[in-house]
Amino acid sequence: MMTTKDEQVHQIRADELAAMVEGTLVGNPNLHLHTLAPIEDGAIGTLTFIRSQGFAKHWADSKCEAALVTQGIDVPGHDPENRALIFVADADMAMVKVLNAINPGTATPPRGVHLNAVIDPDAHVDPSASIGPGCVICKGATVSAGVTLMANVYIGQDTHIGNDTQIHPGVVFGDRCTIGQRGLIFANTVIGADGYGFLLATKDRPVTKVPQIGIVEIGDDVEIGACSTIDRAKFGVTKVGHRTKIDNQVHIAHNCIIGEDVLLCGRTTLGGSSTIGDRTMLGGAVILNDQATVGKDVKIAGGAIVLDVINDGETVLGVPAMPARIAMANIAAQRNLAKFCRRVDKTLKKLDSDYQPS
Amino acid sequence: MMTTKDEQVHQIRADELAAMVEGTLVGNPNLHLHTLAPIEDGAIGTLTFIRSQGFAKHWADSKCEAALVTQGIDVPGHDPENRALIFVADADMAMVKVLNAINPGTATPPRGVHLNAVIDPDAHVDPSASIGPGCVICKGATVSAGVTLMANVYIGQDTHIGNDTQIHPGVVFGDRCTIGQRGLIFANTVIGADGYGFLLATKDRPVTKVPQIGIVEIGDDVEIGACSTIDRAKFGVTKVGHRTKIDNQVHIAHNCIIGEDVLLCGRTTLGGSSTIGDRTMLGGAVILNDQATVGKDVKIAGGAIVLDVINDGETVLGVPAMPARIAMANIAAQRNLAKFCRRVDKTLKKLDSDYQPS
Amino acid sequence: MMTTKDEQVHQIRADELAAMVEGTLVGNPNLHLHTLAPIEDGAIGTLTFIRSQGFAKHWADSKCEAALVTQGIDVPGHDPENRALIFVADADMAMVKVLNAINPGTATPPRGVHLNAVIDPDAHVDPSASIGPGCVICKGATVSAGVTLMANVYIGQDTHIGNDTQIHPGVVFGDRCTIGQRGLIFANTVIGADGYGFLLATKDRPVTKVPQIGIVEIGDDVEIGACSTIDRAKFGVTKVGHRTKIDNQVHIAHNCIIGEDVLLCGRTTLGGSSTIGDRTMLGGAVILNDQATVGKDVKIAGGAIVLDVINDGETVLGVPAMPARIAMANIAAQRNLAKFCRRVDKTLKKLDSDYQPS
Repeated sequence: MMTTKDEQVHQIRADELAAMVEGTLVGNPNLHLHTLAPIEDGAIGTLTFIRSQGFAKHWADSKCEAALVTQGIDVPGHDPENRALIFVADADMAMVKVLNAINPGTATPPRGVHLNAVIDPDAHVDPSASIGPGCVICKGATVSAGVTLMANVYIGQDTHIGNDTQIHPGVVFGDRCTIGQRGLIFANTVIGADGYGFLLATKDRPVTKVPQIGIVEIGDDVEIGACSTIDRAKFGVTKVGHRTKIDNQVHIAHNCIIGEDVLLCGRTTLGGSSTIGDRTMLGGAVILNDQATVGKDVKIAGGAIVLDVINDGETVLGVPAMPARIAMANIAAQRNLAKFCRRVDKTLKKLDSDYQPS
Repeated sequence: MMTTKDEQVHQIRADELAAMVEGTLVGNPNLHLHTLAPIEDGAIGTLTFIRSQGFAKHWADSKCEAALVTQGIDVPGHDPENRALIFVADADMAMVKVLNAINPGTATPPRGVHLNAVIDPDAHVDPSASIGPGCVICKGATVSAGVTLMANVYIGQDTHIGNDTQIHPGVVFGDRCTIGQRGLIFANTVIGADGYGFLLATKDRPVTKVPQIGIVEIGDDVEIGACSTIDRAKFGVTKVGHRTKIDNQVHIAHNCIIGEDVLLCGRTTLGGSSTIGDRTMLGGAVILNDQATVGKDVKIAGGAIVLDVINDGETVLGVPAMPARIAMANIAAQRNLAKFCRRVDKTLKKLDSDYQPS
Repeated sequence: MMTTKDEQVHQIRADELAAMVEGTLVGNPNLHLHTLAPIEDGAIGTLTFIRSQGFAKHWADSKCEAALVTQGIDVPGHDPENRALIFVADADMAMVKVLNAINPGTATPPRGVHLNAVIDPDAHVDPSASIGPGCVICKGATVSAGVTLMANVYIGQDTHIGNDTQIHPGVVFGDRCTIGQRGLIFANTVIGADGYGFLLATKDRPVTKVPQIGIVEIGDDVEIGACSTIDRAKFGVTKVGHRTKIDNQVHIAHNCIIGEDVLLCGRTTLGGSSTIGDRTMLGGAVILNDQATVGKDVKIAGGAIVLDVINDGETVLGVPAMPARIAMANIAAQRNLAKFCRRVDKTLKKLDSDYQPS
């Protein structure tokens, strides 16, 4: 098999690779492939992928020896004597198959409970779970079959961790939260801290904390990156739907309701009680105002700030977020704004002797 | 009492609730209330609150059975046979009272030091403190009466934790920092990492670290969210005043001076040596430039970038932050900028044959 | 020696200080200095520094008794009877020398492995390393000579920590990552979480995870702040060059390539596969788009968003980032935009009866 290290430890022949991904080989079946690279990089023994015509035009000059190609793409300049193209239904999916085959995986503690873990006698830990050193599982918590808590993970009182969920070191789950099956949570993420809720000071009393007594409820097949935070609801639920994928350093405030199959890229911030519909995608560092309402199948470009409502199916960007076509035109105008103002000032001054330039 | 779960475990009669919040009941005293909801949601057995005329107009159509209402608000369409309004001096404060009454609280370790905690023999830990597993308390540190360190908390050398402060799992306090009484710090926050201070490279030497030998000093009744960072001063003090409330993923750089009763919402970033006056409120994801000076009683809207000085009492927003009235007008103009430019270009071309459109 | 506390525990005479920094004293050699302050603050016994003419003009009114001054700066209003100026080649470097001399340092665990640390029998831990309580070192990992893991640090399988690197509590290194010598990593930072890589859902399949099988490779003399995240590559390497300094809450996505001597200030976000050349400086909260390419010796102001390419040596700012001169003019125009539009509307309406104001 292949490897991701520099040393050529393992390798695979081009025809074997074609069989593995159920593809059609055009070219040399005997190439020995042992590493992966983008099409612009590469060397002898390197496999790459061609998912669009834009990639295909680099093939002739690429140093990669083989490529997975989505069927229907025309790849000019192929040299079938010395190189190999493997046509598949979907080059991306084939690449996922290859990556899975060579994935060294994540080191995890063995089944059972490490001696340095602390499990409350009234917690329920399935015997097939793997609980690493330094983990703390509080009273009434449930850690289901196949769960992995790598190390120094904290599971609060009455919290439920669903089957086969893997939790990396340092993750903290507050009390009474739940996550479904096959979840994956990266290190130092915090689920279920108090929402940020205060009554403003008046002349009669200082700032007053509003107790945050709700919970966080996370569906199945959810992935959450490192150092992200999802706050518990004031009352009721902060909710993350099935199959939603959350990047690193994302902040989800109290009472947010996030649909299914949603993608939230790095450092996105959701204000309190904001909602996101199914299959919506947010780029990096997006900000949703408190109570913002984002529909289904929306695309929000990185860096956008959403003030209020985005309807189903819209593609928006900018500050504040607006439909992409208008935003792009405004951004273009902003890039030339100083020049535009000078030109207008000059002309108006010529036309109207009363005009005062800026 | 009430509950936040779906099951109707506990409930309270409307007249009992009125007595608890010292309110005046108008309507059915015998309703059994067992949960809370926003006025637009709700069902049989649900309590909500009406803090303004804007909420009141939803009452007639709401499915909630009872509401806490701030005195003086007119609630149209009330059906006193079947529903209940409870008039109080301040619906928000009454709701806080209700939430406190039903708050299940946070699970904490018992008094004393867990066997898996590591306490330096020269640390001072009050016997009434609760020190959970995995906590580390260094030489010379003081952990005062009633303090809770939940799990895996690190208290650096000579650091002082004031009475009744509660610290969630994974929090790290560096050496020589202090926090006052009744603090509340959520998981994985880091207090007292080095400030980011370097001398730029010259042709004679590489980038050079400026030792960060100051401390962090936090007042009483301060709340800090999860995954926030407050850096120690280069020399002197990074300071957070009494009763200031800090949300998740806030970053406070070295030598910042933050006043009392300040509110910092999620993901706000304070550059080095910036200062904030008492009672000032910052929305989410605000950025303060290094050395920015923000006065007292200022309001800064989410997403703003403050370059230099904001005077006492101002309300600002935008990038860069400017008085709200001007900023709102500029933002409105920006939203229509491309259209405006096209219209001006067209007219000027007509008026002046020499004009070159953008 | 001096102190950073209020009490005057230690002090140094002005002439001794001049000798220590190899400077030339002009003024009273017998002043007793015991603390440091900015030139606007200060009191009896306080040392400050004057690195530019801008600082020098405050000297006459400053309450500081002594100052380190970069040679060649003219300091008006000096009173050599009662105060002291110490001229040095570089006041900043002299201040670093003073700070290092009085630096109390960071409390660290003693040499050897704490009883509450968990070391895999197949891990390699140098006997001169200091491994604090709660640390976990996995199979095949190497912890080199002089390394300090303060507490609750997780070192993944086959990960390599170079000589004399100091790692603060709660840091997590995933599997197969490496860091060089003399590194300094602050608390709760996560190195080597999975990159955020998914194939978008199609009508035939849900969102699909792309295995992230690459690594993170960090050079020598790198400093990383608290709660930052550096993701492993999809395949290949996410790389941080020698002597690069990274602030708190910075997010570096998969496959980023960061050069040497780079400075990344607080909360900066690098999108996937973005690259940064040597000696480039990014201000706080900068965003780099996926695949953005930033050259060498670039300066990017805080809050900028980089969409695509910044060439070597450029200074840029704004959203999107553009050359500073143009961006400053555009920002100035934006600040007055509403006013400008009104004035233009008014004049055009007067000149052209067909014109429709905005």
